[in-house]
Amino acid sequence: MPTQDSLDFQKVFSQLSTQIKQLENYGEVASYIPELSKVNPKKFGIHLITSDNQHFDYGDSQEKFSIQSIAKVLSLSMAFRLEGPSLWERVGVEPSGNAFNSLSQLELEHGIPRNPFINAGALLICDVLVSHLNKPKEEFIHFVRKLVGNDTINYCERIALSEKEHGFRNAAMVNFMKSYGNIKNEVHEVLDFYFHLCSIEMSCAQLAQAMSYLSSNGINPLNNEEVVTPSRAKRINAIMQLCGFYDEAGEFSFKVGLPGKSGVGGGIVAIHPEKYTIALWSPRLNAKGNSYRGMKILEFFTTQTKSSIF
Amino acid sequence: MPTQDSLDFQKVFSQLSTQIKQLENYGEVASYIPELSKVNPKKFGIHLITSDNQHFDYGDSQEKFSIQSIAKVLSLSMAFRLEGPSLWERVGVEPSGNAFNSLSQLELEHGIPRNPFINAGALLICDVLVSHLNKPKEEFIHFVRKLVGNDTINYCERIALSEKEHGFRNAAMVNFMKSYGNIKNEVHEVLDFYFHLCSIEMSCAQLAQAMSYLSSNGINPLNNEEVVTPSRAKRINAIMQLCGFYDEAGEFSFKVGLPGKSGVGGGIVAIHPEKYTIALWSPRLNAKGNSYRGMKILEFFTTQTKSSIF
Amino acid sequence: MPTQDSLDFQKVFSQLSTQIKQLENYGEVASYIPELSKVNPKKFGIHLITSDNQHFDYGDSQEKFSIQSIAKVLSLSMAFRLEGPSLWERVGVEPSGNAFNSLSQLELEHGIPRNPFINAGALLICDVLVSHLNKPKEEFIHFVRKLVGNDTINYCERIALSEKEHGFRNAAMVNFMKSYGNIKNEVHEVLDFYFHLCSIEMSCAQLAQAMSYLSSNGINPLNNEEVVTPSRAKRINAIMQLCGFYDEAGEFSFKVGLPGKSGVGGGIVAIHPEKYTIALWSPRLNAKGNSYRGMKILEFFTTQTKSSIF
Amino acid sequence: MPTQDSLDFQKVFSQLSTQIKQLENYGEVASYIPELSKVNPKKFGIHLITSDNQHFDYGDSQEKFSIQSIAKVLSLSMAFRLEGPSLWERVGVEPSGNAFNSLSQLELEHGIPRNPFINAGALLICDVLVSHLNKPKEEFIHFVRKLVGNDTINYCERIALSEKEHGFRNAAMVNFMKSYGNIKNEVHEVLDFYFHLCSIEMSCAQLAQAMSYLSSNGINPLNNEEVVTPSRAKRINAIMQLCGFYDEAGEFSFKVGLPGKSGVGGGIVAIHPEKYTIALWSPRLNAKGNSYRGMKILEFFTTQTKSSIF
Repeated sequence: MPTQDSLDFQKVFSQLSTQIKQLENYGEVASYIPELSKVNPKKFGIHLITSDNQHFDYGDSQEKFSIQSIAKVLSLSMAFRLEGPSLWERVGVEPSGNAFNSLSQLELEHGIPRNPFINAGALLICDVLVSHLNKPKEEFIHFVRKLVGNDTINYCERIALSEKEHGFRNAAMVNFMKSYGNIKNEVHEVLDFYFHLCSIEMSCAQLAQAMSYLSSNGINPLNNEEVVTPSRAKRINAIMQLCGFYDEAGEFSFKVGLPGKSGVGGGIVAIHPEKYTIALWSPRLNAKGNSYRGMKILEFFTTQTKSSIF
Repeated sequence: MPTQDSLDFQKVFSQLSTQIKQLENYGEVASYIPELSKVNPKKFGIHLITSDNQHFDYGDSQEKFSIQSIAKVLSLSMAFRLEGPSLWERVGVEPSGNAFNSLSQLELEHGIPRNPFINAGALLICDVLVSHLNKPKEEFIHFVRKLVGNDTINYCERIALSEKEHGFRNAAMVNFMKSYGNIKNEVHEVLDFYFHLCSIEMSCAQLAQAMSYLSSNGINPLNNEEVVTPSRAKRINAIMQLCGFYDEAGEFSFKVGLPGKSGVGGGIVAIHPEKYTIALWSPRLNAKGNSYRGMKILEFFTTQTKSSIF
Repeated sequence: MPTQDSLDFQKVFSQLSTQIKQLENYGEVASYIPELSKVNPKKFGIHLITSDNQHFDYGDSQEKFSIQSIAKVLSLSMAFRLEGPSLWERVGVEPSGNAFNSLSQLELEHGIPRNPFINAGALLICDVLVSHLNKPKEEFIHFVRKLVGNDTINYCERIALSEKEHGFRNAAMVNFMKSYGNIKNEVHEVLDFYFHLCSIEMSCAQLAQAMSYLSSNGINPLNNEEVVTPSRAKRINAIMQLCGFYDEAGEFSFKVGLPGKSGVGGGIVAIHPEKYTIALWSPRLNAKGNSYRGMKILEFFTTQTKSSIF
Repeated sequence: MPTQDSLDFQKVFSQLSTQIKQLENYGEVASYIPELSKVNPKKFGIHLITSDNQHFDYGDSQEKFSIQSIAKVLSLSMAFRLEGPSLWERVGVEPSGNAFNSLSQLELEHGIPRNPFINAGALLICDVLVSHLNKPKEEFIHFVRKLVGNDTINYCERIALSEKEHGFRNAAMVNFMKSYGNIKNEVHEVLDFYFHLCSIEMSCAQLAQAMSYLSSNGINPLNNEEVVTPSRAKRINAIMQLCGFYDEAGEFSFKVGLPGKSGVGGGIVAIHPEKYTIALWSPRLNAKGNSYRGMKILEFFTTQTKSSIF
């Protein structure tokens, strides 16, 4: 017998088509690297997986896109697992109150990034993984494939290269943190790993699957292996709530009311702890760099299903 | 028959005495105004009210203390109710990433405070209330008394006066926002209301009662009147989650995992939506200005009861 | 027999008419207070006094205008004389690198203004004078009258009142410095003196006379009294060089090459130590708030007469 | 017949020995690279060249030391000559009001350094030279040798290498400016040139000779060739006055009253336009990174000879 929740989800998914038609598709596709600017701006996909493994989807939910910064949740999870709580000596858990790529704050705080989701923090996490892993790129993609249960998940070398060619600001940040002693490995190695990390491609369906451990107390529902402990899953969710949308984190919490993470490819993942994981994709970005329609539809979704965590 | 939750709460409350004994009472009592510095630093009180009106308490839970900034949640609720969504044209919902009394950010953002809980934002909310109310101080305390169900709740004139005498920084902020046109009333009137707001005294028991509407979808459980709509209750909780602990908001979310608000009097209130409201009091503050033992005990509490919202 | 210098000055003054005709009169008259916005934007006056008391003038050099911030050089001189070197414990001598009315820097530096010419520093100097003088406004205007040798020099009460009505940002700064303990007198008294200071009216001829002590080793050439010691005259000139034009100080040094001070009324005074004092007036301001034509004509003047100090 | 000036200089130089004995030698030798920390902190040299080619010297004035940032005046002069006024589209002439190696300001101002003497600005100047020169390092050292009239002047490869190994912050700045499009060449090439520039070694006598064109209207007095035009010499002096001592520029102007430039090797050069060039060396640095005794002795010197430009 379907639960009340699953009836609610079904109902809201059946309304999506009308909702999306009514919604203007404002904003611009990311264009700081040529590869991202080529995407079809009309794409829209959504996929929801409940904690009892029901799936709901709509639109282009099976089409792969560049998940970009959403991958930072996965790298954080792996680094937290490998490094443990000493991780927090090198990166904070506070919202930055600034743009995602600000160097000023890094200077004020002596090379300790505010949180693992601003660029500086994600680069720091890459440095941690480079220290722990023998073959960082291989081992990380293997970790992601197990989460998705799909061995075809991969980096996009064209995008990684394109990121590298336009990555002087990220290079500035790694060098800057290294000047404070907070980067342990070679600058180019950390950057190479980071640019690959940002280039991973998945569909909404795969992305929702990959992140399901965060709505399942840290357990990968595909194989019942613990990705992170229940307590750490909660903590990663808390960091997403406060820092997942850069300087629009408050707005997202205020309107959507779930922990989530966005990427400039137009993807968003949101978690309702112990209930569901939802992934959306719509490439046009609002002024803050988050998916315009993705945020609107998520707001509609949590309002209709009354499923904000607040 | 007691629920599993209430059994859990009972068990954890029975362990509090041991926990508190093991815990060092670090930090300093607030001393920026003489009145606050006179409090007995050993005081410790806690009071929890469930959404089905069970009460749990411990220690000095019936003793009144200065709730200070916790009152900003109440003034925000009243202003949101009176002004509606146009409120957000004059104050943001984003974490500040800065200390609670910073003017720099206010300058960068042209007199629009980041959120209603930093001092500038709370002063702005006072200005909104002064515009809406005929007798702001009388009408506000009446609003609070109805929430608590107790007509003895009051301002402490000695503390209000003491705040005023040391309030040059707050006066700077009101003047600064007025220079941007974001304060509509007389500077001295806004300040007088603000200094009174911060001087309200309640016990943990009263404070938990006053804030219960935030764990009850906006309904005052004492009289079933709607204080704010369910949607607005969620939004106020979201703002607390992101901004309630100044530049320690991330730490509080990370370790405690509930929306909450602290005051320099050593009080903390936290909300588990649809489950409970909890109020604590312990006057010694950590380096960020939040109750040292209050945060530790709340972390213990949500860990033991697994009741983080994440 | 005329000196080479005086022949040079005569020649350049005879070219001014042509120069000014060729020069567009860009920029806007100050409009933050209504009184200032009423000035005729076509006015142009210039007056030069050499250290051997030759006078050169052109245009509206006898017409009074609001000298505004130029008065800060006079108040600094009086405060330096009364307070001595301990003055520098409460205000710095470094260029601010910021706009003249920034509060952010004041916050970073704990209420110690960078220099006596940014608004915060000038307010601090007013506080020093209020501490030293029995009747600050009367005694200060008496000091200025003696410098000019003219008892009709006065405050403009309309402008002082207008400044007060729009002076919330200055009120913010005084309150802010008082919160750090760096203002000793009542906020309203310091502000009242400051708003009067800024309202003084003089002609170019009077202004050049008033400031002549700075090109005469501190001696008032009208009565041979020492206004400040020779060493202090040099130091005041040095502060003007580095801080006299807010965030255009470098540009002014680079192009004009003299210590100088501007006001939003469109006035500029520049000093060639031991050679001359020059005052200009042209109300339209460039984007940085300094007289557009005043800067252009001074650049022309020092280039033609090769009289930069560099 | 000796001039009054030269008699004054002679007299003051004869008092130096006593002065230096009375002066504590506070501060620390630069230690951010090992090579610099090895210098004997007791060294003290001074050399003055008048515009009519009289020489005065004292102490270790013939001993070579690392001139460090003083070389930035020479690279600026060469770049100004090669690039002309379009140089100022890529770097400003305003004092920074910040530490010499701040990235925050660079961010606020979109990759345009405030002036050519902060690190970012000097790196930008290196980029300009790399664009103009076929063999930047060779051609630049040749330019310097002609100024000194000495073909043995050279880079110190050990120091250049040591700078490189500790140069992550400078690498951050070049990458950061390149992200704004304000660096045209390869990052490593600009850095390599910069690290060499900072490694040049000269004695006080050589340094005073090298910089003499700035007190001689841009003419190299050794060969009467124009290094920069008279107007540009004035402008470089103006930039030194406002920006030559980082966030102590005001203090230096206030106390010494000459355009000047310091280096972390403990060197200082100051210019009295059309009168003299003076070079000092004393390795211990004050809290702002400028030679402690160098500043004190220069203050003594200009006070005794009344030769401040103000």
